[in-house]
Amino acid sequence: MSDETDGRFAYDGLDRVLHEKARLGILTALVTHREGLSFGDLSRLCALTDGNLSRHLDVLAEEGLVQIAKAFVGRRPQTSCKLTVVGRKRFREYLGQLEQVLRDAADEETAKTKTKPRPGLAGA
Amino acid sequence: MSDETDGRFAYDGLDRVLHEKARLGILTALVTHREGLSFGDLSRLCALTDGNLSRHLDVLAEEGLVQIAKAFVGRRPQTSCKLTVVGRKRFREYLGQLEQVLRDAADEETAKTKTKPRPGLAGA
Repeated sequence: MSDETDGRFAYDGLDRVLHEKARLGILTALVTHREGLSFGDLSRLCALTDGNLSRHLDVLAEEGLVQIAKAFVGRRPQTSCKLTVVGRKRFREYLGQLEQVLRDAADEETAKTKTKPRPGLAGA
Repeated sequence: MSDETDGRFAYDGLDRVLHEKARLGILTALVTHREGLSFGDLSRLCALTDGNLSRHLDVLAEEGLVQIAKAFVGRRPQTSCKLTVVGRKRFREYLGQLEQVLRDAADEETAKTKTKPRPGLAGA
């Protein structure tokens, strides 16, 4: 029998700052690009408008999860984004919780084979 | 090199109805209990107040993902909840997308070993 303790399916580790769909995409893009990504690449890879991307990056930067830098590439200003050490750590913890959800949901297969005893059918 | 196409990290399959943290917990609890769960058990397992649980179940029921039944157990009214066939299917699709996020984020290990060529250090 699976664990049926209180809060078994509460998933407190699914931090809403990281769990939000667009931010989850941004974080996944950044975690796979250690050198960081330009604002343009990030908006393209995540299919976010500039306004939406800005808004989500602000949330992540306020939490200290991403670092935003502005620099000139030739004469052009370029914004680049990368994960902070804290951001990488918190995202890893979050991913651990996601893995837990998937493991829990996979218990379905086990649950399938457990048929509920029906009265009158015992021993049939 | 990993796939860098537009929208690579957009995760359109992370349906907001299912992705919301509390509802994700409710769905995971229900997917592992094919016979359904009583309202009381569900609120305890997901650590949700009755009000919160009601609100989230309404959202899921409106989308046809859960079925809510009221019955009498002896003289006591009991509310029970279970996934619908559609709910199970959509949750499975959602879980497939979550697995994709985890696979994508795991590319980090690969990315780590890819050091960016630095000017002046080529061939060093």
